[in-house]
Amino acid sequence: MTAPSTAEATRARIADTAEALFRSMGYQKTAVADIARALGMSPANVYRFFPSKSAINEAICTRLLSGISARIEAEAEGAGTAEQRLNALTHELLKACLEVFFTEKRMHDMVAAAMEEHWSSITQFLDRLVAALRRCVADGMASGEFAPGDPEQMALVLKVSLLAFYHPQLIEDCLNMPEPSPDLAQSLDLTLALLVAGLKRGLR
Amino acid sequence: MTAPSTAEATRARIADTAEALFRSMGYQKTAVADIARALGMSPANVYRFFPSKSAINEAICTRLLSGISARIEAEAEGAGTAEQRLNALTHELLKACLEVFFTEKRMHDMVAAAMEEHWSSITQFLDRLVAALRRCVADGMASGEFAPGDPEQMALVLKVSLLAFYHPQLIEDCLNMPEPSPDLAQSLDLTLALLVAGLKRGLR
Repeated sequence: MTAPSTAEATRARIADTAEALFRSMGYQKTAVADIARALGMSPANVYRFFPSKSAINEAICTRLLSGISARIEAEAEGAGTAEQRLNALTHELLKACLEVFFTEKRMHDMVAAAMEEHWSSITQFLDRLVAALRRCVADGMASGEFAPGDPEQMALVLKVSLLAFYHPQLIEDCLNMPEPSPDLAQSLDLTLALLVAGLKRGLR
Repeated sequence: MTAPSTAEATRARIADTAEALFRSMGYQKTAVADIARALGMSPANVYRFFPSKSAINEAICTRLLSGISARIEAEAEGAGTAEQRLNALTHELLKACLEVFFTEKRMHDMVAAAMEEHWSSITQFLDRLVAALRRCVADGMASGEFAPGDPEQMALVLKVSLLAFYHPQLIEDCLNMPEPSPDLAQSLDLTLALLVAGLKRGLR
């Protein structure tokens, strides 16, 4: 007999167990019945806390992506010029994505599935990414490092133009390329250099 | 009895029929046996011309993407400043992708499958895209419209940063978004404006 736990603690326990199963069996192959069995619960009990397997996935994705968001935000709030912080932020993003998506292929599959279904965890992640980018851009515009402009608009442009460095499918495509695989970090350096040159000149 | 055709004409006839079937039945659901039946041929005869269904798909993809490449190249070779030509080229690319991938959902699926398998048609398409971008960039650098730099390197950066406007999966993700769907043409305008500002300033 375990001590009665709060709903929040039970939700966390279900998510932990589901995450372990997703990592070992893969996201598609894990059923709610497997999660319940590993917890010594009935599936009905799991469903009391999560209405569907998809809701469990979303909770796990949210945790995972929140961790990446926190790392990005730390870089956005760090020391240095706006350009240096954009560099640090985007390289941290690429590094986190490579770690999560590729050292743990199963997690990659889970996030890729989340992206297809536009779960709210993805939307939150993108919102936090845009906010971190906007912070650097706005600071650069305020200090005169960048030309005057609309920080939100420019942050959205950066989000779109840097997709190759954080979208799981694009990273996977890139790493699977038959030719000598492009160096993602080097390609990010050049891409960001051009975008920063654009921010310095401004749209006029 | 039809007149005996050259191997090339037979290949084209097989590709035409397969394309019609892919459009009506979908790419995944069409078997070589279906293609052979529609042509009044044996599957063995189809295999004499194409070693696999995947080879037929590749021939169709090559035709389809060559048509888009030709449209892009016409814009790259057109009149106007380098900036105007980059604008025309990228908007023509987006327009062609929206036409091909979305007025014909089946073709989209086929191209998406090709992208996953890195068929040579995709590589050729990307090579022609980079060449068209490089031409505009090199002309802009030569005329002084853009700062001096490495046109090949900058063309590769443009290819990567504009992915959202020609990658079938990204376009589909974007069009499926629950929020008010972003206006792709408007987003392209802004993204290209920032990249062109970067080209004018140059990396230094």
